[in-house]
Amino acid sequence: MVKIGIIGAGRIGKVHTESITRYVKGAEVKAIADPFINEETKAWAKSLGIAEVYDDYKKILEDKEISIVLICSSTDTHSKISLEAIAAGKHIFCEKPIDHDVNKIKEVMDALKGSNVKYQVGFNRRFDHNFRAAREAVKAGKIGELNVLKITSRDPAPPPVSYIKVSGGIFLDMTIHDFDMVRFMSGAEVEEVYAVGGVLVDKAIGEAGDIDTAIITMKLSNGALAVIDNCRRASYGYDQRVEAFGSLGQVAIENDTDSTAVVSCAEGVIAEKPKHFFLERYMQAYADEITSFIDAVLKDKEVEVNVIDGLKPVLIGLAAKLSIAENRPVKVAEIAAEFGL
Amino acid sequence: MVKIGIIGAGRIGKVHTESITRYVKGAEVKAIADPFINEETKAWAKSLGIAEVYDDYKKILEDKEISIVLICSSTDTHSKISLEAIAAGKHIFCEKPIDHDVNKIKEVMDALKGSNVKYQVGFNRRFDHNFRAAREAVKAGKIGELNVLKITSRDPAPPPVSYIKVSGGIFLDMTIHDFDMVRFMSGAEVEEVYAVGGVLVDKAIGEAGDIDTAIITMKLSNGALAVIDNCRRASYGYDQRVEAFGSLGQVAIENDTDSTAVVSCAEGVIAEKPKHFFLERYMQAYADEITSFIDAVLKDKEVEVNVIDGLKPVLIGLAAKLSIAENRPVKVAEIAAEFGL
Amino acid sequence: MVKIGIIGAGRIGKVHTESITRYVKGAEVKAIADPFINEETKAWAKSLGIAEVYDDYKKILEDKEISIVLICSSTDTHSKISLEAIAAGKHIFCEKPIDHDVNKIKEVMDALKGSNVKYQVGFNRRFDHNFRAAREAVKAGKIGELNVLKITSRDPAPPPVSYIKVSGGIFLDMTIHDFDMVRFMSGAEVEEVYAVGGVLVDKAIGEAGDIDTAIITMKLSNGALAVIDNCRRASYGYDQRVEAFGSLGQVAIENDTDSTAVVSCAEGVIAEKPKHFFLERYMQAYADEITSFIDAVLKDKEVEVNVIDGLKPVLIGLAAKLSIAENRPVKVAEIAAEFGL
Amino acid sequence: MVKIGIIGAGRIGKVHTESITRYVKGAEVKAIADPFINEETKAWAKSLGIAEVYDDYKKILEDKEISIVLICSSTDTHSKISLEAIAAGKHIFCEKPIDHDVNKIKEVMDALKGSNVKYQVGFNRRFDHNFRAAREAVKAGKIGELNVLKITSRDPAPPPVSYIKVSGGIFLDMTIHDFDMVRFMSGAEVEEVYAVGGVLVDKAIGEAGDIDTAIITMKLSNGALAVIDNCRRASYGYDQRVEAFGSLGQVAIENDTDSTAVVSCAEGVIAEKPKHFFLERYMQAYADEITSFIDAVLKDKEVEVNVIDGLKPVLIGLAAKLSIAENRPVKVAEIAAEFGL
Repeated sequence: MVKIGIIGAGRIGKVHTESITRYVKGAEVKAIADPFINEETKAWAKSLGIAEVYDDYKKILEDKEISIVLICSSTDTHSKISLEAIAAGKHIFCEKPIDHDVNKIKEVMDALKGSNVKYQVGFNRRFDHNFRAAREAVKAGKIGELNVLKITSRDPAPPPVSYIKVSGGIFLDMTIHDFDMVRFMSGAEVEEVYAVGGVLVDKAIGEAGDIDTAIITMKLSNGALAVIDNCRRASYGYDQRVEAFGSLGQVAIENDTDSTAVVSCAEGVIAEKPKHFFLERYMQAYADEITSFIDAVLKDKEVEVNVIDGLKPVLIGLAAKLSIAENRPVKVAEIAAEFGL
Repeated sequence: MVKIGIIGAGRIGKVHTESITRYVKGAEVKAIADPFINEETKAWAKSLGIAEVYDDYKKILEDKEISIVLICSSTDTHSKISLEAIAAGKHIFCEKPIDHDVNKIKEVMDALKGSNVKYQVGFNRRFDHNFRAAREAVKAGKIGELNVLKITSRDPAPPPVSYIKVSGGIFLDMTIHDFDMVRFMSGAEVEEVYAVGGVLVDKAIGEAGDIDTAIITMKLSNGALAVIDNCRRASYGYDQRVEAFGSLGQVAIENDTDSTAVVSCAEGVIAEKPKHFFLERYMQAYADEITSFIDAVLKDKEVEVNVIDGLKPVLIGLAAKLSIAENRPVKVAEIAAEFGL
Repeated sequence: MVKIGIIGAGRIGKVHTESITRYVKGAEVKAIADPFINEETKAWAKSLGIAEVYDDYKKILEDKEISIVLICSSTDTHSKISLEAIAAGKHIFCEKPIDHDVNKIKEVMDALKGSNVKYQVGFNRRFDHNFRAAREAVKAGKIGELNVLKITSRDPAPPPVSYIKVSGGIFLDMTIHDFDMVRFMSGAEVEEVYAVGGVLVDKAIGEAGDIDTAIITMKLSNGALAVIDNCRRASYGYDQRVEAFGSLGQVAIENDTDSTAVVSCAEGVIAEKPKHFFLERYMQAYADEITSFIDAVLKDKEVEVNVIDGLKPVLIGLAAKLSIAENRPVKVAEIAAEFGL
Repeated sequence: MVKIGIIGAGRIGKVHTESITRYVKGAEVKAIADPFINEETKAWAKSLGIAEVYDDYKKILEDKEISIVLICSSTDTHSKISLEAIAAGKHIFCEKPIDHDVNKIKEVMDALKGSNVKYQVGFNRRFDHNFRAAREAVKAGKIGELNVLKITSRDPAPPPVSYIKVSGGIFLDMTIHDFDMVRFMSGAEVEEVYAVGGVLVDKAIGEAGDIDTAIITMKLSNGALAVIDNCRRASYGYDQRVEAFGSLGQVAIENDTDSTAVVSCAEGVIAEKPKHFFLERYMQAYADEITSFIDAVLKDKEVEVNVIDGLKPVLIGLAAKLSIAENRPVKVAEIAAEFGL
């Protein structure tokens, strides 16, 4: 029975903890740590049979019984705790992004070299049943050679402006998942990025120095073209779709809904809105990514989303940021070169 | 922590055991019993932390710590074990049908009278997200007064003929779920039944004295009309749909699929087939019915599917059987009267 | 250039006249007759270049230049005018039904024997692109052997009660099209009928001796089962669908809409309602049935819907009527025998 | 009865001629002219009752009875014939584009000034039932303020390379319709364009100096963003869709199909492919644009697509061309300035 420690008892830390408890055989959560742990969380941990609840995550790193840690703390702590956990010889599942600062990601990459540590990044959409089915269709050659990849990604409502301010901007906070999807769906690298954007949802987002709506065009290493459109607000819920078009056809995925019920009445033929937000849409994907990670650890296999997969979307995001700032296409290599990559 | 005993470790017994372990807080499976228990099942039980594995279910009934039992054994034992469990003061979740013999169901009904035993019948479709959404639309008045209820229910492939022979016939084995759905969706009682049927799938089913394809028309107590169409084989998978049509409109549900992926190619625009069979389609419904039952026990509430709900579809099924035999419409009251109901 | 006479300048007479003028090469409408012809209709006829407008249809029958007549007058005149037109040696397209009285249809059948007159009945749905695509899928073996045929047929709103009173009842007025569809889709004959019905839309319809909602179950000559559900009112528009289910799969058709536009908003994901009623839904089918008929005349081919196709749905309708009256399944042969058929 | 002359008896000239003959009351085609007129076309014209067939279009311009001309000749003759027809005082419907050369369009614009000539450009998609429904939803405020407009436009197969060479390139030949759709759907002007493209379908297209696949991003005058994706080949047919996303929701249109039939079988749930190409998809739109134009002439109303609507997409197309050539965003004003606009 492999023992797991959870660092960070916020929303996503709890999601992973419950997933492991429910779905992952041969693994148990032994400890959870959070500097702001409260009584409610303690009771919740107890109800799940978790032995230890700490406010200091270092106790988890010191526990010899624990071989796997999940880093679910705030983004600015990811790389630091990653380094410490690598030093402690723990296998690591780290929530995305590893960091907004490429140099800090490089430190993690360097620390991993020569270690036996498994390191997986939390790009959960790769485990979503819909994205996965689309990827499998592409991989199986059902659309032939990929020509055009289109991703729509819209949140139901923007986060608080206080969050926007520390988010790293829309490209590193929100589009980063879509950049990962471009790489996942295409099996290719993004070479050049051009982005346009606007403040169409909330002026306060603009005043915070960010945009809330964007279209990002990309040239890929396999010659295909890709485009993402983002918005921080979709009145009808979380809109997460992809279309992959190629020489033999197209595969497209639609949103999930709570049910298939359709009401026909004088007002029209009315289906349900998409599932509201990421927790509803991706609950099973969160369970599946953790299951996959623990399986990789137990069977000593390659993780499905590695540290390079954590790095690349950050580089693309920085390219998109520069593209907006200077209104020009930016090569990802230009960004990489800045960091000696 | 309420303790539960599972009687019957076949497919559905295991499904319920895992559901309780994963989803139901404040409850644990203490024991499981099956006369044909094997090493594999024992290992599975152990991995879930189940304390006791018996080959004799009576040990469960004797265990004073256990307050709830799930009867997941073969149909012919349901009523007998129900009676014993009632006598032992256990709350009971009994898989459908309680029995094919109305007199045996009456014995259970009689035994329940005056007891404090909660008794729920396993009509899982009432907990399916799609059927539930349709029912809620009807209940909320979105379609006005119900006029016509249509249910399509087709299995991907027929069971072995050996099973058909002891199944009680298509109406008691398969359509019984649909009869329950007619009552659930309409909130009304079935008053008269007319059935037509044929052996269109497999001659061996006909030789076993059964049919494999049927259409059943019903008159309901609220004046609405209902129709079910059944077939033991649908080449494209498990087909479970409903349309409720009324004075203000219609609500319809479609099948669930593994993903929303659609491939457009030279052959057409191809979506996925329905989920293959009941375990795939109704996995969450199985968890939800058990959660609901345990909740009813813990909070001393009415169960959502009671013993009367277990009785009625059997009466309707017997009416359908007689209708086919005599090629005439049969009143459910005619069947009920035979049993002094 | 073949010359055509139109008998009856009501809605459907005008539809056919415009179709011929627009779509049918090598044919022209020379004359139109209606006892209630008005100035507006005369102006309309003139604008289409129609040479003669009569109030007496016999002038059309007397015109030696006219070789084809379309009987679009009221139902009670269909058989009489048919007989006169056959005597005059005209080819005849007769709107459905030929008559509600089987004996009168028999007179037409007798008159046709030995004549060279082409006689087509106006079952327009056989020419609808959707029903036709479904029929072609069945014929091409895409669903294997037909097992279950399901037809939904609902009008947006009931006709005036004054019309109901002379309509012959729902089965001869409305379901007659669906009975034709059962024969068309299945390529088989209806052998036995069982019908249930109710007055769920408007009590005045019941007071006029009719029903407004019905479910009709049928046994077909090829062993398949069929079911039709009818209602005189669907709040969301004209609902005309079919599902044909067989050993290898199912083909289903949905309603047509004015556009494919779908609005996603806070209220849901809203598609358009079906096209409002038969003129909107079947406009192209009306043109195509006339084109087919004139083509059969010009090329001396079999018509696609002959006098027997006009007779059979009336027999089935009478069986359904008797089934409701006596609440029992009725063999179509029982009805046929009454008329020596 | 207004008399019309058709200049150019190619595919689209014939489509318009038949539409007028069938659908447009109060108008008749008196003459048709084509330098390559053949016997087949003459017979076709005769069958439609067209009085005159010329090889020289000037005979049409000289005919005093003819008040309306349709210019359906090859693109390089559009502006010249437009000027002559304006001089002759004819109302003009001119197929798109007026010219690839902005200066020649300016000559037409200048000639129109002060004249009473109605001049409509053949952007037929504005009359398509789907695009029109989407536009009406936007205009009616159903999606609130427009944020993101997405257009997919793919042909089933590329034209011959000989055509590609004289086509003006993908942006002026194919995307020009989509640029018009951006203006139509948004009710705004395109201010800046960035395009990426590739030769992913056929190397011969690249050798001819063109691309076959492109993504074009635009900034609009109302602050919204727009993106078009184009490909010269879609294996599943003509793919013409739009999504307009705004502050209150989204409206999206799907392709039309020949029927709504869906086959469920072991291979999946298979719907029809989109209608094959523009003639199938837009046949009704061609009729409706001509009807609208003749109505504008007869009632002296504004045409729905004027000469400015003909100019603007050419400017945008030239901006896209320059964007690809120099890999930079290009302001439409930069192009306009070159031509003193």
